[in-house]
Amino acid sequence: MLSKNRIKYINSLKVKKYRQLHQAFIIEGAKSVLELLESDFEIEFVLATEEFLQKYSTILTRHSVAAETATAAELESVGSFQTNDSCLAVARTKQNEFLSLQESEYVLVLDDIRDPGNFGTIIRVADWYGIRKIICSSDTTDFYNPKVIAASKGSFTRTQVFYTDLADYLANHAENRNVIGAFLGGTSIYDFPFSPKGGLIVMGNESNGIGQEVASFVTDRITIPRFGEAESLNVGIATAVMLDNLRRQLS
Amino acid sequence: MLSKNRIKYINSLKVKKYRQLHQAFIIEGAKSVLELLESDFEIEFVLATEEFLQKYSTILTRHSVAAETATAAELESVGSFQTNDSCLAVARTKQNEFLSLQESEYVLVLDDIRDPGNFGTIIRVADWYGIRKIICSSDTTDFYNPKVIAASKGSFTRTQVFYTDLADYLANHAENRNVIGAFLGGTSIYDFPFSPKGGLIVMGNESNGIGQEVASFVTDRITIPRFGEAESLNVGIATAVMLDNLRRQLS
Repeated sequence: MLSKNRIKYINSLKVKKYRQLHQAFIIEGAKSVLELLESDFEIEFVLATEEFLQKYSTILTRHSVAAETATAAELESVGSFQTNDSCLAVARTKQNEFLSLQESEYVLVLDDIRDPGNFGTIIRVADWYGIRKIICSSDTTDFYNPKVIAASKGSFTRTQVFYTDLADYLANHAENRNVIGAFLGGTSIYDFPFSPKGGLIVMGNESNGIGQEVASFVTDRITIPRFGEAESLNVGIATAVMLDNLRRQLS
Repeated sequence: MLSKNRIKYINSLKVKKYRQLHQAFIIEGAKSVLELLESDFEIEFVLATEEFLQKYSTILTRHSVAAETATAAELESVGSFQTNDSCLAVARTKQNEFLSLQESEYVLVLDDIRDPGNFGTIIRVADWYGIRKIICSSDTTDFYNPKVIAASKGSFTRTQVFYTDLADYLANHAENRNVIGAFLGGTSIYDFPFSPKGGLIVMGNESNGIGQEVASFVTDRITIPRFGEAESLNVGIATAVMLDNLRRQLS
């Protein structure tokens, strides 16, 4: 049976303040936990049903993971979601380390993305299109939020994130680089020639788009052409379409 | 103050059985209600805050809409979502009418899409890319589910939907048409030549993809190329990338 302290600890990690205090976060669900095991994250412990622990005992042993049995009901009660899943893990968060841009590399820049589901989707999409680095404004939602982790479907294990003041970052570390921003009324992405030299792709807030200060660093304003009447596209969708056009052109 | 009967009626419409019985559905939020007012849906009534009713009195009068004042708290208590919004409407559902394919037209075919959020996103994306008709398998989630309507962000007003047995539909009404299906391991969408003659684009279930019976009618298997390591893309994202490639090629 789960101890009260453990339940209390796990519950505390649903709150950003406590994730920062304990430098730890929750990973829920079999797929995410299995990807976590293959990653370089340091795992504190895995809680899982008897069945899960038996099925994956070889992997768990190979990674010397502290594993504890919990019933499906216990997992459901401590988890963030009301889906009955077979496991949950707690791992150490990583330091907020500076990310530099390599020659010919494309990175994603997020200006104040607020919705955890959107952020998780963006991480998954970036991973599909081979983008490994995401530079986030300080007010972008927390990468370690359980909803972000869940929506990323395991892709959080392959993504490096750096939270910073974007204007400062762009002013000091993006000189001579293409800074491509998604705006209404920009050049069509079908006509825009993505450079093989790489660059930064900036996606803005769900309601307000890219902020004025960040926008001043954008060198290329591009737009996804619209053929019907929807007013806008969700930011996760827009990111996917941008990256698809980028990779198609450069592949 | 809202009458108990009205509260009961609105709450009943959150359930498919009662939507079918009453042939009515709920539309929540200012943006969706305003788009509803401009559509050909028959509106039973609008419930809104004093402020909303004053702000949009001209539009409401022009459309001869029965409007009733409700407090923000009342709206929140009857709405599906815990966001305090300023209005809610109830409108008549449309008959499930057969949709035929016009020459050079592209339509979307959904095989067992289960998640209301995904379905709503697909409707919004289709609207962005100028696709007006969606043919749904009978087990695809209900178009009039409040979560579908909300996620479509008003695009439900511009979309025609027909629920049917897909195998039967494809066998009898898609002869000599391209039936393009999203599969793993198909032709890259970057190389696939979308025909100006139009066709059907089939998207499959979130977990299982396109079912075997429907798959047998697919004439072209196409794939979104992957450049990184994410295992899959969400079906809403995949639909957007497919339609973006289609429109780019044919524009």
